[in-house]
Amino acid sequence: MKKRVLLIVCDGLGDRPVRKLEGRTPLQAATKENLDWFATQGACGLLDLISPGVCPGSDTAHLALFGYDPSQIYTGRGPFEAAGVGMEVRRGDVALRCNFATVDEERRVLDRRAGRIREGTRELAESIDGMEIDGVVTHFKEGTEHRGVLLLRGEGLDPRITDGDSHEIGGPVLEVKPLVPQAEKTAHVVNEFMSRATEALSDHPVNLTRKGQGLEPANFILPRGAGKFPSIPLVREKWGLRFAAIAGVALIRGICRSVGMEVLDVKGATGGLDTDIEAKIEAAMRALEEYHVVVVNIKAPDVAAHDRKPGLKTEVVERIDRSLGMLREGIQEDWIVAVTADHSTPCDTGDHSADPVPLLVFGDGVRRDDVVTFDEISVAVGGLGRLRGVDLMPLLIDLANRSEKFGA
Amino acid sequence: MKKRVLLIVCDGLGDRPVRKLEGRTPLQAATKENLDWFATQGACGLLDLISPGVCPGSDTAHLALFGYDPSQIYTGRGPFEAAGVGMEVRRGDVALRCNFATVDEERRVLDRRAGRIREGTRELAESIDGMEIDGVVTHFKEGTEHRGVLLLRGEGLDPRITDGDSHEIGGPVLEVKPLVPQAEKTAHVVNEFMSRATEALSDHPVNLTRKGQGLEPANFILPRGAGKFPSIPLVREKWGLRFAAIAGVALIRGICRSVGMEVLDVKGATGGLDTDIEAKIEAAMRALEEYHVVVVNIKAPDVAAHDRKPGLKTEVVERIDRSLGMLREGIQEDWIVAVTADHSTPCDTGDHSADPVPLLVFGDGVRRDDVVTFDEISVAVGGLGRLRGVDLMPLLIDLANRSEKFGA
Repeated sequence: MKKRVLLIVCDGLGDRPVRKLEGRTPLQAATKENLDWFATQGACGLLDLISPGVCPGSDTAHLALFGYDPSQIYTGRGPFEAAGVGMEVRRGDVALRCNFATVDEERRVLDRRAGRIREGTRELAESIDGMEIDGVVTHFKEGTEHRGVLLLRGEGLDPRITDGDSHEIGGPVLEVKPLVPQAEKTAHVVNEFMSRATEALSDHPVNLTRKGQGLEPANFILPRGAGKFPSIPLVREKWGLRFAAIAGVALIRGICRSVGMEVLDVKGATGGLDTDIEAKIEAAMRALEEYHVVVVNIKAPDVAAHDRKPGLKTEVVERIDRSLGMLREGIQEDWIVAVTADHSTPCDTGDHSADPVPLLVFGDGVRRDDVVTFDEISVAVGGLGRLRGVDLMPLLIDLANRSEKFGA
Repeated sequence: MKKRVLLIVCDGLGDRPVRKLEGRTPLQAATKENLDWFATQGACGLLDLISPGVCPGSDTAHLALFGYDPSQIYTGRGPFEAAGVGMEVRRGDVALRCNFATVDEERRVLDRRAGRIREGTRELAESIDGMEIDGVVTHFKEGTEHRGVLLLRGEGLDPRITDGDSHEIGGPVLEVKPLVPQAEKTAHVVNEFMSRATEALSDHPVNLTRKGQGLEPANFILPRGAGKFPSIPLVREKWGLRFAAIAGVALIRGICRSVGMEVLDVKGATGGLDTDIEAKIEAAMRALEEYHVVVVNIKAPDVAAHDRKPGLKTEVVERIDRSLGMLREGIQEDWIVAVTADHSTPCDTGDHSADPVPLLVFGDGVRRDDVVTFDEISVAVGGLGRLRGVDLMPLLIDLANRSEKFGA
């Protein structure tokens, strides 16, 4: 029987022993009968998203989970962020992540996030969209809150430039510089864009209103993370299957869209702590009727961990677990279900780490092992052993009886 | 919190079940409460230094442990041996390991080690240092006992030549031959060096004295293991951290120095069975105040195993264990400690094997597993699984919260 694959990525789920949790990880501390049930019925293991000891970004990790080797194709986050905010990204385009920021008259950075501006960024973005500099067309689109994306389209672009964002407060805005001679033009275009943008933004009605309200004006664009969209086959060419994705975060939505997945909109799926996990799982179960592979990203554990809140992360795990009760009840015999993470985010550091993430694979035909608890330590002795991120998708597609033989 | 890394390499520690030890390995037979304590508090696993089934040399294994992939950079042992005896090695130099040997008048090998000569090798080496052959300058320096290094510096050198040492007694000295046409010049230079050297050595006062005492004269140089020094980034460029090393053996000291580590001298650290292990551990603990990563090599287990003495190897393990008591007592919360080996040396064969070596990683943030005994079999079900040598350094640096994210 040919089967379908549901891959649930609990963002930043992996952790280290936390003192506040008496040396347990949030997964160990959580009550999670459904995750444990799936682990008991299935096979478990550890996953190094890139390779052991290499600390993954969310973007490189998701590319690996979809079967692309990031070390072969990754140049920078910009293009994926651009796709995430709904821009059309073409091969050869260079894109940069940006912040709306506040600078003083000497272009010293007063606030890297323009007072975490939420309202009016669409109008601001429109006012600086569609310039032409040195024959390069520049597009700008707002993201969530203070975020935006600058996309460059034209001949001879090269993403090997320095960031304009020093990540420091009080210092001057940085001039973007080429890291290689081939990137001189690109650096010039970005610097010119920054100058023209600050002129257009300074007297923009949105900023005049903000000043009147005592809020920081969004009068500067800080770009960083330039990247070129890689030449990779789309998932339907690579795997010969229809993929759908459910995710709230712009970056993940962008990556999914850029590799050719259908990104489904789910009401209440925000990419934050307030996200409706049940709605996501429900939508994924429905999507399995139409798609061969459905990927769900649940960002909430990562948010709690970045805030260094192990108690909150434990609660998030328990919320995910409750939502999986619905999946457990509605499970179909032609579904292969995998639950894992894109990286660890230890609550003690509040940032990504290279610690491998737990993995469970459930479904008809899976070699059930002795693991009965889904956490970072218990799964280490599971039947799947220690795998690499790029190997998971082929493994799941094979369990779905849809792999192609290598050889005869 | 950013942490520091202590990597303890017990040379040749891995073994196979030994009949004399009732089917146990020396690690299993040893009483080792400190190693077991670290294993209990930390996480364990198995390490294939190169890859499963590939039998590592001490040099390739250490390169892997430092994060260099030997399959990418390794051409031969000579250059590392040269650095180990204190020669300055430059990129492009070709170096060969050599023995002082005894030959008869027909150049048949009577003793590959010239009666394990210990005295006078410096004078002998000086008498054959600094020739010029075909525009190539040849340097020669003595090592420990009967060992020495021949280093060639000049244009158009290529290390792909055969060995001059047949490893057999009674047979004729071998002519060195090029393995590829590009190495013809190098082969000729080495053959010419061998001829000139034997002329200079035969009537050397040191050898005349030896003959008078009834000892074998060191009247020939047997070269082997030609290699070219690779173009690799130094550790501080590769990892952005300061490394120090403590090792008694010339080869290991040479490798550490050649990759840019500070090699610390420790009184009593000999690289032999008589080495002062406590002094090494103490020096390493002090060095952690100044360096981000400290590597300690303890050669003694390998020496016992090469001599095929499982009882002695067991005693060496117990000595190492006692020395670790000091580390256990003085441990700091910002230290990540790893204990492993560079290869297995089964006492039954007396030579290196590809059997993976045990690994323990200890420190704050390490995911403690259920392993309570540090031996080759117990660690196989540990939380670290089975890793490759080249992955260990990134893993430790990530646990020290000093890794760089790949992606965003």
